[in-house]
Amino acid sequence: MTATRTFAFVLYPGLTPLDFVGPLQVLGALQEFGLGFEAVTVAADLEPLHTDIAVSVTASHTFAQVPEPFGLIVPGGGAPTFAALADEHLLGYVRRAAGTAELVGSVCTGSLVLGAAGLLEGREAVTHWAAMPMLRAFGATPVSRRWVADGPVRTAAGVAAGIDMALQLVAELVGEDACRMIQSAIEYDPRPPLGPIDWSGLDREPMESWLRSQVQQGLAADPELRARLLAP
Amino acid sequence: MTATRTFAFVLYPGLTPLDFVGPLQVLGALQEFGLGFEAVTVAADLEPLHTDIAVSVTASHTFAQVPEPFGLIVPGGGAPTFAALADEHLLGYVRRAAGTAELVGSVCTGSLVLGAAGLLEGREAVTHWAAMPMLRAFGATPVSRRWVADGPVRTAAGVAAGIDMALQLVAELVGEDACRMIQSAIEYDPRPPLGPIDWSGLDREPMESWLRSQVQQGLAADPELRARLLAP
Repeated sequence: MTATRTFAFVLYPGLTPLDFVGPLQVLGALQEFGLGFEAVTVAADLEPLHTDIAVSVTASHTFAQVPEPFGLIVPGGGAPTFAALADEHLLGYVRRAAGTAELVGSVCTGSLVLGAAGLLEGREAVTHWAAMPMLRAFGATPVSRRWVADGPVRTAAGVAAGIDMALQLVAELVGEDACRMIQSAIEYDPRPPLGPIDWSGLDREPMESWLRSQVQQGLAADPELRARLLAP
Repeated sequence: MTATRTFAFVLYPGLTPLDFVGPLQVLGALQEFGLGFEAVTVAADLEPLHTDIAVSVTASHTFAQVPEPFGLIVPGGGAPTFAALADEHLLGYVRRAAGTAELVGSVCTGSLVLGAAGLLEGREAVTHWAAMPMLRAFGATPVSRRWVADGPVRTAAGVAAGIDMALQLVAELVGEDACRMIQSAIEYDPRPPLGPIDWSGLDREPMESWLRSQVQQGLAADPELRARLLAP
């Protein structure tokens, strides 16, 4: 009998659903391979949580029900994710679960939650491009890549990058055939209508300015952390 | 004052969340542009719906609350989507809403729901690659593209293709700058770790066989429709 290896996606109010739904769809498909992998969602309780789009999501398990996942993945978002940086109940679960997990991951600004939990100190990491300097507030070195692996810690860039990171995990944990099979099952054969992001032509200011407003809003009650994140 | 143009994503039990969360994240961002666009989710009621992964989703509105959306988009899935092909309450809403909508869309096997509602007769359409022949059961001509536009009907290929179709809609409805802005906000700059899908090397049989089993399961009570979908 194979021991169960559980990926737990950490949910909290106000998050960006695409951050976790993409990788959950990928890692959830591992269940079919009979290798003992499963992917669940965990939250403080099993009530529906509002999100940053017009849908609510309900976790499959409470934090207490999944104390020692094999892999822990924290999705991100705007103001509510910054509020989560000061949520000791959430951070307590992330810290305890990370203590025994073999993989600790994040998508988008979820990496800042790992940072606030003290898990990025001295590590290389990535987050949404507009939040990159904020990683330094937690002792991390920002590295601009689609995903970054440093020891057990895997951080993915903004939102959609979680899909790429999850497929990479499948390739490493199970193999390239499994990765290709899941990629074709979700027909992940991207064709952005205007092509890839034109990084050199991108006007970064509007998104960076919006993100600063999200920090102000999410951390209104925590001037110290707010100042650290917004330090130039 | 700008009239509100509402995109309504149709939710039902057992669907594949990535089918609608990707495009909802894209079209939901249109709200920021002050042009009167909004994106909501609609379902028979506001109870949490299980999905094909370990998370439940709750719609923001009931069918009755959004009788005349500007755009209607139906996501897909496995057996539960085939069951939805015989759900007269769901099909009734889709038919009525499509009657006044300017855009009628689908992602993945959601196109078969449009077909069952009689909306694909004589039209070109796409669906998940493994379900392509099933479109003929509803009088549609299968066309292998990332998304297909035929009159007011937009169908996207499997799961992740919904993101590409939604970005294309933004480019058409608002403009290429808006499309680029939303693409960068969700950092949709895909890097599938093993590259794009290798269509010529793909072993299609396992997924096609799995999908046939989903038809059997979802339409166990409807032998006539089941036979039409599985006709060679």
